[in-house]
Amino acid sequence: MGTPQPDRPLYIRIHERDNVAIVVNPGGLPAGSRFESGLTLTEPIPEAHKVALTNLAPGDPILRYGVTIGYAEKPIAQGSWVHEGLVATPEAPDLNSLPLATAVPHPLPPLEGYTFQGYRNPDGTVGTKNILGISTTVQCVAASVDYAIRRIKAEILPRYPNVDDVIAITHNYGCGVAINAPGAEIPIRTLRNLSLNPNLGGTPLVVSLGCEKMQPSRMLPTSALPVVTDEPYIMRFQDEEHRGFGDIIAAIMRMAERRLVQLNRRQRTTCPASDLVVGLQCGGSDAFSGVTANPAVGYAADLLIRAGATVMFSEVTEVRDAIHLLTARAANETVAHNLIREMAWYDEYLHQGLVDRSANPTPGNKEGGLANIVEKALGSIAKAGSTPLAGVFGPGERVTQKGLIFAATPASDFICGTLQLAAAMNMHIFTTGRGTPYGLAMAPVIKVASRTELAERWPDLIDINAGTIATGQATIEQVGWQIFHLILEVASGRKQTWADHWGLHNDFALFNPAPVT
Amino acid sequence: MGTPQPDRPLYIRIHERDNVAIVVNPGGLPAGSRFESGLTLTEPIPEAHKVALTNLAPGDPILRYGVTIGYAEKPIAQGSWVHEGLVATPEAPDLNSLPLATAVPHPLPPLEGYTFQGYRNPDGTVGTKNILGISTTVQCVAASVDYAIRRIKAEILPRYPNVDDVIAITHNYGCGVAINAPGAEIPIRTLRNLSLNPNLGGTPLVVSLGCEKMQPSRMLPTSALPVVTDEPYIMRFQDEEHRGFGDIIAAIMRMAERRLVQLNRRQRTTCPASDLVVGLQCGGSDAFSGVTANPAVGYAADLLIRAGATVMFSEVTEVRDAIHLLTARAANETVAHNLIREMAWYDEYLHQGLVDRSANPTPGNKEGGLANIVEKALGSIAKAGSTPLAGVFGPGERVTQKGLIFAATPASDFICGTLQLAAAMNMHIFTTGRGTPYGLAMAPVIKVASRTELAERWPDLIDINAGTIATGQATIEQVGWQIFHLILEVASGRKQTWADHWGLHNDFALFNPAPVT
Ligand SMILES: [Ca+2]
Ligand SMILES: [Ca+2]
Ligand SMILES: [Ca+2]
Ligand SMILES: [Ca+2]
Ligand SMILES: [Ca+2]
Repeated sequence: MGTPQPDRPLYIRIHERDNVAIVVNPGGLPAGSRFESGLTLTEPIPEAHKVALTNLAPGDPILRYGVTIGYAEKPIAQGSWVHEGLVATPEAPDLNSLPLATAVPHPLPPLEGYTFQGYRNPDGTVGTKNILGISTTVQCVAASVDYAIRRIKAEILPRYPNVDDVIAITHNYGCGVAINAPGAEIPIRTLRNLSLNPNLGGTPLVVSLGCEKMQPSRMLPTSALPVVTDEPYIMRFQDEEHRGFGDIIAAIMRMAERRLVQLNRRQRTTCPASDLVVGLQCGGSDAFSGVTANPAVGYAADLLIRAGATVMFSEVTEVRDAIHLLTARAANETVAHNLIREMAWYDEYLHQGLVDRSANPTPGNKEGGLANIVEKALGSIAKAGSTPLAGVFGPGERVTQKGLIFAATPASDFICGTLQLAAAMNMHIFTTGRGTPYGLAMAPVIKVASRTELAERWPDLIDINAGTIATGQATIEQVGWQIFHLILEVASGRKQTWADHWGLHNDFALFNPAPVT
Repeated sequence: MGTPQPDRPLYIRIHERDNVAIVVNPGGLPAGSRFESGLTLTEPIPEAHKVALTNLAPGDPILRYGVTIGYAEKPIAQGSWVHEGLVATPEAPDLNSLPLATAVPHPLPPLEGYTFQGYRNPDGTVGTKNILGISTTVQCVAASVDYAIRRIKAEILPRYPNVDDVIAITHNYGCGVAINAPGAEIPIRTLRNLSLNPNLGGTPLVVSLGCEKMQPSRMLPTSALPVVTDEPYIMRFQDEEHRGFGDIIAAIMRMAERRLVQLNRRQRTTCPASDLVVGLQCGGSDAFSGVTANPAVGYAADLLIRAGATVMFSEVTEVRDAIHLLTARAANETVAHNLIREMAWYDEYLHQGLVDRSANPTPGNKEGGLANIVEKALGSIAKAGSTPLAGVFGPGERVTQKGLIFAATPASDFICGTLQLAAAMNMHIFTTGRGTPYGLAMAPVIKVASRTELAERWPDLIDINAGTIATGQATIEQVGWQIFHLILEVASGRKQTWADHWGLHNDFALFNPAPVT
């Protein structure tokens, strides 16, 4: 790539009201550095951290994105470093006095003619991969299913070359849990809907122990299966016909081969871009995330929505402080109320655990220049682009609607990814500032770096560099189109993400707000 | 094996006060079956289920183990089936009015001369395996560490034949969690103490992303390392020296090889049985568990404790209803109070999740003849044998004491196993009635079946059949000695468990009572 680095002091001010800006230069800037505007640094400021553009008195609002991200704790001189220790966090917006659908954006013009080559499923969804998934009801069978999958991959899969992969949906739920507690419906429906992800092509295979709390009929009641032409296939370890481990493994392998025969017959066909269900997420964010990678993804989100697709954003604790901006953008009052309901549920969940939303930012976020959750949230929602918020779904629910969707999840990268897969995601876009080798087995993950330095340091993990936006070498629109085109290529199986290249597939992580027993 | 089955109706009554007994015959017994005592069945009763030995009026106590396990909900005729629908669950014992160290058993005579061949560690503990463990601070690095381990096993491990295995301690903690919430100390100390398990031989290797909440210094503060001659080895993905994924993997492999060189030099030496730290657990229990497998394990526990070893039992929700028997057995009032403290903590934890201890039993437990948590608890604590309760440790704490220890954990098989490994377990005994292919990578798991039918159906998963106790073909003492001897053989590396034979190693499962973010 070899992007040239800026050789003169450079900062980014996002909104004309802002009284802080972030330093762009790799490695930061020394005291005395002078910007084109005439501003001179009174002290060294690290890359991605904030510089005061004016003198601030204690209690003055600190403005970024044109919004108050905090209040000055002490006097802050023009040209000095506005680090997290100087910024008091504002109260979270009151959920009872929010604007409801007061600023619904005009729909953007439709974007026609964009297609990808996908696997059309009987229920109308489209897979971007052709994977054999083996669902499990309980962790007791996980190691045995892993054993069976090693053998399936070595002995059977080579005969079915049209099938991309064989994966086990293993997890730590199913037994030893309070299965009738409030909140238990979340992990249960997550596992159900993971089994129905478009990339698994329909009829789930289920491996059960036999005596577990989450029986197969509870995980996959026949009524919950949208389109199943034949029965879901179920195999139970404790059934009397299995005489020992060899029998158990043979039974799993026979069941798998029956599905491999079916899956192997499938072919990619031309599908409109509207069949994409794209999940957006950020992880290891820095202060650049909100000005480079996330706005570029937001632009791509707008393109996808103009093309008729579903685009999900998530991460409740990173949306909470920007909720007033989103309720205003909701397509109607019902959608706004549904969003408030999800925020209120999570407020209460955190409150019961004796914490609040300030538990979200990490040491790395702060080192990366993010002072608090407000600043992080404003950067995070840039991923959501500029279209109306069309719908809201609860954690682990299957999304059945086009347009911009808030799919409520924790911000934890792996829980969010797992819940977005349950929501029927067939493509994942992940922005990162600090860098993470994140990957999922069930859907391709395109990783977008917020900084050129990261993209150049990890050329074989980062798929797209949005850092060029900070240095003026590319526009948000250009990188947005680049992401959009790469999505179509990857969805068609013509290009491979780096995570898939290396086979970096993190384990599923469930969200279980209920107790274990 | 081919154990002969009883051809005449047979039941087991455990205590002379009992007014119910359990049917022993495989497949159960038809109506009209007549026992030697003259009792005749008024209806069919499934195997392992209870028969009424007398007529019971509504409200009459139902006695098993000489203890009230419930009250008759309706009139129950002599010879009829006492199924769970007829049994009202009693209140849990009040934690404020328990006997404290009122019935401390006399110490049993010491058992001398029993040894095993183990790996002596610098901190005085002893490994039963010689494993290279790679700790991780956050799930972000898990898939990459798995990738590195595949390459280490293929390319490096063959040169170090004295090392048994290379395992990653991967988990879903470390970021996206409320790391300062009450209860967060549990997953953090669990991960710390897993890294210090005796089977990993000392100095932990730590792989970190860099920006995560649980920094390496928080997981393994130098002060917490009992004996570390050199620094813990730490590798961070985000360090600037790593240019891409290839560098990252190479760095992990180099660090691993340095430890493999050290581990490969170790030899097994003769160690007294007192160096064993044995964790006991049951899973997939049935009504036989409490009369065959668990009492036999309890006898083995007594032998181990007579030989000076540490024996841990766990599973709070399965001990709660038998707490009055255990506080009486506590070595002193402090130990009794510590036990009560753990029960009270868990009562509150379940209460906050709006459930109680009745959330524990599974459909399989009930099908296996266990009416409720009281009956399950009385069977479960039979594993604890008959010695004084010497100490109590919280979830994930490292156990540093000999004798019978209560290591507080949830009953969930994988969380319990993980927490017992953190407690420094070097050998695990697992009893099962319904059957499970349970296994752990970090310590050998000996599986004991409660029924001959299961042991014969799964000959290549079950290590010891305690079902012979039910049919009178073996005594509790005989099977107890058999377990004790097998422990010494497996601990010495001379025999392999079935779980290790097949490589059935379930993932670690943490206990995190705090919220995710
Ligand atoms: Ca995020
Ligand atoms: Ca995230
Ligand atoms: Ca148990
Ligand atoms: Ca258990
Ligand atoms: Ca795994």
